[in-house]
Amino acid sequence: MAIEILSIGDEILSGSIQDTNFPYLADALKKAGYLVSFHQTVSDEPEILEKAIKNALARSQLVITTGGLGPTLDDRTKEITAKVFEKNLTTSEEIKSILTKRYSGKLSSIENQSIVPEGTELLYNDIGTAPGFFYRKGNKALVVLPGVPHEMKAMFETYALKKIIELLTDRKKIFFKHMHFCHLGEDELDPYLREIEKRHPNVSTGIYPGYGILSVSLKVVGEEKKLDECAEFLLEKFPTHFYSYEQKDLAYALQKEMIAKNLTLALAESCTGGHIAAKITNIADCSKYFLGSMVSYSDEMKKRALLVASSHLEKFGAVSKEVVEDMLLGAEKLTSADFVLAVSGIAGPGGGTKEKPIGTVYCGILKKGSKPHVGKILSKGRTKRELVIEYVSNFMLGSLYRKIMYDVNSF
Amino acid sequence: MAIEILSIGDEILSGSIQDTNFPYLADALKKAGYLVSFHQTVSDEPEILEKAIKNALARSQLVITTGGLGPTLDDRTKEITAKVFEKNLTTSEEIKSILTKRYSGKLSSIENQSIVPEGTELLYNDIGTAPGFFYRKGNKALVVLPGVPHEMKAMFETYALKKIIELLTDRKKIFFKHMHFCHLGEDELDPYLREIEKRHPNVSTGIYPGYGILSVSLKVVGEEKKLDECAEFLLEKFPTHFYSYEQKDLAYALQKEMIAKNLTLALAESCTGGHIAAKITNIADCSKYFLGSMVSYSDEMKKRALLVASSHLEKFGAVSKEVVEDMLLGAEKLTSADFVLAVSGIAGPGGGTKEKPIGTVYCGILKKGSKPHVGKILSKGRTKRELVIEYVSNFMLGSLYRKIMYDVNSF
Repeated sequence: MAIEILSIGDEILSGSIQDTNFPYLADALKKAGYLVSFHQTVSDEPEILEKAIKNALARSQLVITTGGLGPTLDDRTKEITAKVFEKNLTTSEEIKSILTKRYSGKLSSIENQSIVPEGTELLYNDIGTAPGFFYRKGNKALVVLPGVPHEMKAMFETYALKKIIELLTDRKKIFFKHMHFCHLGEDELDPYLREIEKRHPNVSTGIYPGYGILSVSLKVVGEEKKLDECAEFLLEKFPTHFYSYEQKDLAYALQKEMIAKNLTLALAESCTGGHIAAKITNIADCSKYFLGSMVSYSDEMKKRALLVASSHLEKFGAVSKEVVEDMLLGAEKLTSADFVLAVSGIAGPGGGTKEKPIGTVYCGILKKGSKPHVGKILSKGRTKRELVIEYVSNFMLGSLYRKIMYDVNSF
Repeated sequence: MAIEILSIGDEILSGSIQDTNFPYLADALKKAGYLVSFHQTVSDEPEILEKAIKNALARSQLVITTGGLGPTLDDRTKEITAKVFEKNLTTSEEIKSILTKRYSGKLSSIENQSIVPEGTELLYNDIGTAPGFFYRKGNKALVVLPGVPHEMKAMFETYALKKIIELLTDRKKIFFKHMHFCHLGEDELDPYLREIEKRHPNVSTGIYPGYGILSVSLKVVGEEKKLDECAEFLLEKFPTHFYSYEQKDLAYALQKEMIAKNLTLALAESCTGGHIAAKITNIADCSKYFLGSMVSYSDEMKKRALLVASSHLEKFGAVSKEVVEDMLLGAEKLTSADFVLAVSGIAGPGGGTKEKPIGTVYCGILKKGSKPHVGKILSKGRTKRELVIEYVSNFMLGSLYRKIMYDVNSF
């Protein structure tokens, strides 16, 4: 049994728009217990499309198409799928009546959209105008969905999925577990994933690095409990690096803990230029712990807003232990936050020197009532500005998380 | 001649991550004069992958793969492509030396990443560790790129594209022009694009809205000059909304003009939470005009850092004309910037009321020596927090751009 998805449309094939339908469908099918075996992006040229659908039906039990169901010139999926299944097209009075009611008969495309293949099962479109279809022949089926993402999604969830479950009775019990770690290298974790796959041949693993974040996926068929065992094994190896099973975004894990522990946070950002604050404020309810960030990009602003000593700026430069200490103290004075994070570094592409190459960052953390803690890190090998900033932002969020959870100093 | 792209990886096929490499490559090839004919997402199961590569090479002259080049267990592209082309794997001393220098010999994966197929052309990875490969056999070629988007992109642009151009000599003369507008609705621009297509049948247009930004693409085969004519027509219609032919990112256009006019900028952000500063500081050399941002998320911080009057916060609330005026004046006092922008609004999902629904934002702009200008906007129909923030951030950058360029008040 194979499942195949065809994303139809020259606008996708030419890179003009991003196809979000395929990853949605693959993920939704996965959650229902089915894995997709093949995916193609297909031109809406009639001959190519017809060939692609025939080939897909030859090798797969279920084929799902998205796109090409609209009323315009380049929307040919309906005609071609009808041809492949040797169906005639006819006007559906039911669809016509639904659309006439919903759009008060005002749409010029109602006639066109009411034409459906004879003898297929209709998939209703509760949001837009183009109906979808469920063609069945023996134990094979073709599901035809529209391309507009929220129409496709609603049609799949409400009408198509139950027909698919009827057709494909061998739903796999596939279970997934995701684990997200910070301050951990791919090469540090990889040997343990190899060990897991060796020990549990029915478990497969994946590893996805993301600038200061390392995500792991564990997949098993059948025995869900195996995943807990594997997760525990990884947790034992890296107890203070793990932060979430659900959310890759570190700011979620941090927010949850900061609020639970009733702590407040303020930032003094230089090289990250507001990115740490932006990550934090992307999340609803961050105001329950986040007070704000002094994005002091210029030296002058460091002095005026954070009371950084002119002598420190002159003597040690903005990227120095002394200035970051001042930034921490200045931000604490201004906000009385329970924790303050501060960063000053060289994001590039200019400004690097031999002593302080691009990627050099002084990181600071100050817990109310304690002394400032400042350290230097080097975001090595990242030559692009955005990547240095992304890495440092995640690194700082991870440092605070590990501090409040495990009392670990990360720099 | 056909071009085929294979996106390799179970994490893409299972819908766990979105494939951004394929649309990037399709678009980049299009700009170079080539159209992609086929695209598949392929599992990293060795047998399936081998079959897919062989099939692709049978029907296409050029096959490009992305993904599966890392040092870990599930990265099998190198081995399998070498097998398909009957090449042995060997250690490249050149790659080994580059990686050892770049990472000071500290990475355990250097050995692994230095293994390359014999007799292929190397594609260097200037950002990450995995090299790419250009296999050639007769008039066919296979280009093997890594899956990490930044690495893939740099390798394609710097090393792969020129080899492709050597191989495929029949480039189409397709010309593109992009135009980026702010503060403009899709329905305001669309009629003029239809007029263009009617007047110039060989020009096709596309319109891509993006949260306060509206991008237009104009495409013509053969006659590049036609595009200038079309662009001029649109410029005439919307002279004060246009900001760039090249960069969609408003912060680029703004930075260029602020530096040229020798102006400085400071921000006082509440609901945008550092996002405006983050957009600005993504760009190298922003320190030439950007002083910083007071991200005053809490009321207390508004009072302490920006001297917002307690009475204003109590009487009018943080989302009000009075508070935004205070924020403007406070930030100017602190920074002496030539321009100050301030925002306070309700990004949601909580906090909306009947009088101030989600999406209500007070925007302020202050030119040194002038009076604060504050207005209210409503980011309508956007129910997601990130989208409200994104819209408001772009709206504010656009407002400043239009102010300094055309002396237009946008709110």
